[in-house]
Amino acid sequence: MQTRLLSAADVTEHTTTADVVDAVEEAFGAYARGDVQMPAKSYIDLPRYNGDFRSMPAYMDAGEWDAAAVKWVNVHPDNEDRFELPTVMGVIVYSDPRNAFPLALLDGTTITRLRTGAAAAVATRHLAPEDASSLGLVGAGTQAYAQLEAIATVRDIDEVVVTDVDPEAVADFVDVFENAYDVRGGSIEEAATCDIVSTLTPVEEPIVHDVGPNTHVNAMGADAKGKHEIADSVLEDAAIVIDDYEQCTHSGEINVPWSEGRLDDEDIYAELGDIVTDTVSGRGEPGGPEGVTVFDSTGLAIQDVAASHVAYEQAEAVDAGTLFSLVGTEI
Amino acid sequence: MQTRLLSAADVTEHTTTADVVDAVEEAFGAYARGDVQMPAKSYIDLPRYNGDFRSMPAYMDAGEWDAAAVKWVNVHPDNEDRFELPTVMGVIVYSDPRNAFPLALLDGTTITRLRTGAAAAVATRHLAPEDASSLGLVGAGTQAYAQLEAIATVRDIDEVVVTDVDPEAVADFVDVFENAYDVRGGSIEEAATCDIVSTLTPVEEPIVHDVGPNTHVNAMGADAKGKHEIADSVLEDAAIVIDDYEQCTHSGEINVPWSEGRLDDEDIYAELGDIVTDTVSGRGEPGGPEGVTVFDSTGLAIQDVAASHVAYEQAEAVDAGTLFSLVGTEI
Repeated sequence: MQTRLLSAADVTEHTTTADVVDAVEEAFGAYARGDVQMPAKSYIDLPRYNGDFRSMPAYMDAGEWDAAAVKWVNVHPDNEDRFELPTVMGVIVYSDPRNAFPLALLDGTTITRLRTGAAAAVATRHLAPEDASSLGLVGAGTQAYAQLEAIATVRDIDEVVVTDVDPEAVADFVDVFENAYDVRGGSIEEAATCDIVSTLTPVEEPIVHDVGPNTHVNAMGADAKGKHEIADSVLEDAAIVIDDYEQCTHSGEINVPWSEGRLDDEDIYAELGDIVTDTVSGRGEPGGPEGVTVFDSTGLAIQDVAASHVAYEQAEAVDAGTLFSLVGTEI
Repeated sequence: MQTRLLSAADVTEHTTTADVVDAVEEAFGAYARGDVQMPAKSYIDLPRYNGDFRSMPAYMDAGEWDAAAVKWVNVHPDNEDRFELPTVMGVIVYSDPRNAFPLALLDGTTITRLRTGAAAAVATRHLAPEDASSLGLVGAGTQAYAQLEAIATVRDIDEVVVTDVDPEAVADFVDVFENAYDVRGGSIEEAATCDIVSTLTPVEEPIVHDVGPNTHVNAMGADAKGKHEIADSVLEDAAIVIDDYEQCTHSGEINVPWSEGRLDDEDIYAELGDIVTDTVSGRGEPGGPEGVTVFDSTGLAIQDVAASHVAYEQAEAVDAGTLFSLVGTEI
């Protein structure tokens, strides 16, 4: 038996964003139903290299399908200067849960990009106004591309406003999408008053102070204690939806006001999985949230499993990637 | 940049057992000095498939070199009957700790076999009589081959007695080694009175009741609560050396008498790492153990890291294996 190797290019070429969004939605549903196994991330801290490794194993059962994988990923902020390598790289081992055969080895960076965009799309599907058509992107890096691609599968986006401290990043983004959308660079204020906003920065002092009266915000940037993109005044008035209680209160967008006592349990409207499974109403449903909604996304290992499942199944269907006999299967 | 794929055959062909033994000795030394990071194994239990996955990340710093890896491994006992696959398979992602680039993907089964044999060899180097020349193997499966190959690098073995419930397994083993050693099938009693004995079975009722007066025993079989190969009377009179306190008292050879209060802290002579680093004497050193010694091996993630380091370095030196661009390295 052979293992399918799926490089960054293989995953990008053969994985349909809309299907990743649906699979990630199923992952959130499985999480709400308790049909996942997701041990806490294990960290290996390497202060001598100013870096760390994280090991993220998980299993999810979506009913129609189930899947298991581990993501081995790092954060080494000096990589670009010292090695001309990205800060974050990742490898995913995707295995058949029935017998544990490693079906695929995948570029984890591409999967992470897809599954993060997909989480925002799932939240947008349930929390943005049905007729939302403008998207603001605060930050024009790689994830901005993933956000637009994923969110455009759940809402009919025509107008896009993108903002970044680096004007070249904005220009590059506009170049890529100007044939498909009415896309332009703009201020944070302009981006933040779109119908949908995704915030994608690592800041520790809020940069988004006002949003539209019915804006849905995907707060994607905060992934560590102290990070904080959106002003407390916005968060305090919004219906806040989280991906995971522990992660969001410790390292998500809400972690700073939470630690200061400005937000507490009463300010959390729901976990996304509860909305996906119809335990709690989304926007437009009876009793659902109105006004501003904020999705606090920290990223779950089951999102990687779900995105890897789609990438593997679609590659397998067209025999994409490279087959390799890595593990011994002699009995 | 490319990742080196090392299949079962690549690892077997290009990895020198003696170097794995030395690297695993360095791993035990680093562990004793506190120069490792080894988070607890994460388990994913899948009762519906009668199986589980384990994720074992680790980093070790041997001084001259350091290394990091994660092993993703499973135990699915029905695999042979249901899928014609081995019960255990594994994949290792071996990464450069300086920048986290995945240097190699390796067959984890072969690495596990090598590192387990190597642990026995390290213990044998420090605990068996200097002139030990006979080796008893209780169990004639795959690990018996690894034990002989590794132990023969630290002692001048000429006589080998192998025993197994399956006579065919014994015959196969004798066939492979009869040109190199005076090797024969024999009873458990004959195997257990050799100078060195390695026990390699999954039994829960002890099958080794007597050993020689100065025998060194490598107790390799127990890896779960309830497993127990060696009679309490032997353990009670022996100098017991463990690989790890938590693992051995919960799932190693000593776990059953430990849970019954027949063995306690006073019965543990040392951790292997303390002997490797000369904090505690080995046999033949002033104050070192005499008579029967028992090494209780449960297996540590840093052994996998050390063995993967050797496999990668040796493969890289001769450009063995297959290079593949798995992860995206665009900045």
